[in-house]
Amino acid sequence: MSPTPPLTVHPVHLVGAGPGDPELLTLKAARVLREATVVLVDDLVGEQVLASVLEGTDRAPRLVQVGKRGGCASTPQAFINKLLVREALAGEKVVRLKGGDPLIFGRAGEEVAALREAGVPVVVVNGITSGLAAVNALGCGWTDRAAGAQGVMLVTGHPQPGSAGPDWPAIARVAASGVTLVIYMGVSQAPSIVHGLLSHLPADLPAAAVQHASTPQERRTVTTLGALVETLARERIGSPAVLVIGRVLEVAVDVATATLQPAALNAAAAAA
Amino acid sequence: MSPTPPLTVHPVHLVGAGPGDPELLTLKAARVLREATVVLVDDLVGEQVLASVLEGTDRAPRLVQVGKRGGCASTPQAFINKLLVREALAGEKVVRLKGGDPLIFGRAGEEVAALREAGVPVVVVNGITSGLAAVNALGCGWTDRAAGAQGVMLVTGHPQPGSAGPDWPAIARVAASGVTLVIYMGVSQAPSIVHGLLSHLPADLPAAAVQHASTPQERRTVTTLGALVETLARERIGSPAVLVIGRVLEVAVDVATATLQPAALNAAAAAA
Repeated sequence: MSPTPPLTVHPVHLVGAGPGDPELLTLKAARVLREATVVLVDDLVGEQVLASVLEGTDRAPRLVQVGKRGGCASTPQAFINKLLVREALAGEKVVRLKGGDPLIFGRAGEEVAALREAGVPVVVVNGITSGLAAVNALGCGWTDRAAGAQGVMLVTGHPQPGSAGPDWPAIARVAASGVTLVIYMGVSQAPSIVHGLLSHLPADLPAAAVQHASTPQERRTVTTLGALVETLARERIGSPAVLVIGRVLEVAVDVATATLQPAALNAAAAAA
Repeated sequence: MSPTPPLTVHPVHLVGAGPGDPELLTLKAARVLREATVVLVDDLVGEQVLASVLEGTDRAPRLVQVGKRGGCASTPQAFINKLLVREALAGEKVVRLKGGDPLIFGRAGEEVAALREAGVPVVVVNGITSGLAAVNALGCGWTDRAAGAQGVMLVTGHPQPGSAGPDWPAIARVAASGVTLVIYMGVSQAPSIVHGLLSHLPADLPAAAVQHASTPQERRTVTTLGALVETLARERIGSPAVLVIGRVLEVAVDVATATLQPAALNAAAAAA
């Protein structure tokens, strides 16, 4: 009897699914998904993106749902790590599909560490992060020299359990020097975030929120920092949403009443 | 005689070309480029990305080079703005292809403003920014809870002429609280940037530089903040490059000596 040939261990691909619009996937992500035999997905966005990529092909990778669903608790991270290792060592072509980009506020680091420890190579495929799709929807940028914004800071409003969380007054001081703030997962903590920011930022500073950026469910509002909490409640903008704070929004504010902004054009077209 | 039918003005697409690897283009960017009749490009990266997208098609949009080339001065922004408006009003399907993402340290705001003023609709197509491809090449993320990095700040080391430029000591104070720094266009200003950062950050904080991230010309180095200037000179890492500073790099540092990092694997495969 000849010995069993050694099993090929393929690299696990951690792939950014982008903000929601399946067309915002990269060509590389689409290729890797088409080649996969097992795909671990977080949420409905990932499933829709995957379905869109596989449309018209006869591929049907095994789909493993590892995210929150209908109020159920999410799959523990340790279990996801083990599953990634197990499937890879079984010779599967594994894709771990994550919303946005895996290297921004995901827990890619833990998955990469687990795979490396098990001797499984990892390739990360970047994606468009929701904070970028959010400013696009608002008609402005992360930075804008004309608005005096020479930098941008991304922070999460949902800190690690047990951690003190971001120092909002310190962040406000940086924002005051001309840095746009993009806050992920900040809606539920908005009252305390805004309270902290108002210590060093004016109440009339433009502030916005975008939910489900780039998708047909997209909702957005532009207001001021002082009125943000009240506006979120009134407009019923819930999680997951991105908050944007800074002078870059002045363009978006001006444009809200004009007819030429793509978003406004879309809204007009939808209403017609 | 019947009157001339009104000319259709198509939206101008400002498209992110990504960091360099043509596979990191989004599906939407690829589609828009295939539909274009005129494409304005900045640099060689854009041209390579465009060539890759059009490969195997019979499309040949008119290519207009508007960037720096071989030491020549770049096309003035005002001229680019006028050209975009003129081509759009002539009925062309215009794409303005920009490296990375148009909404991060580009001058998209000025182009959007000029187009809006002329009544031309604008659609921005996001791209993968080079700062994200840079951390991917280093084997780490922008944020990482395990490394205590709950946020990231992107700043440009190449401030607007006449502006005071970023307040590096203030930025250092924020970085010290657990925020990763990603500095675009910072290599030529590295001595003054590092001097400012060392006022509030330790000299042994990990620091890295990545040039031409995601391309075959990619070069990277991982060192410390205190040794960054010397290392850039010794390794001859020039512009355009991205600097990354923060504890997130500890993973990259650990991994530099291991065999499992994708980058190390690739290097090993190339050497074999």
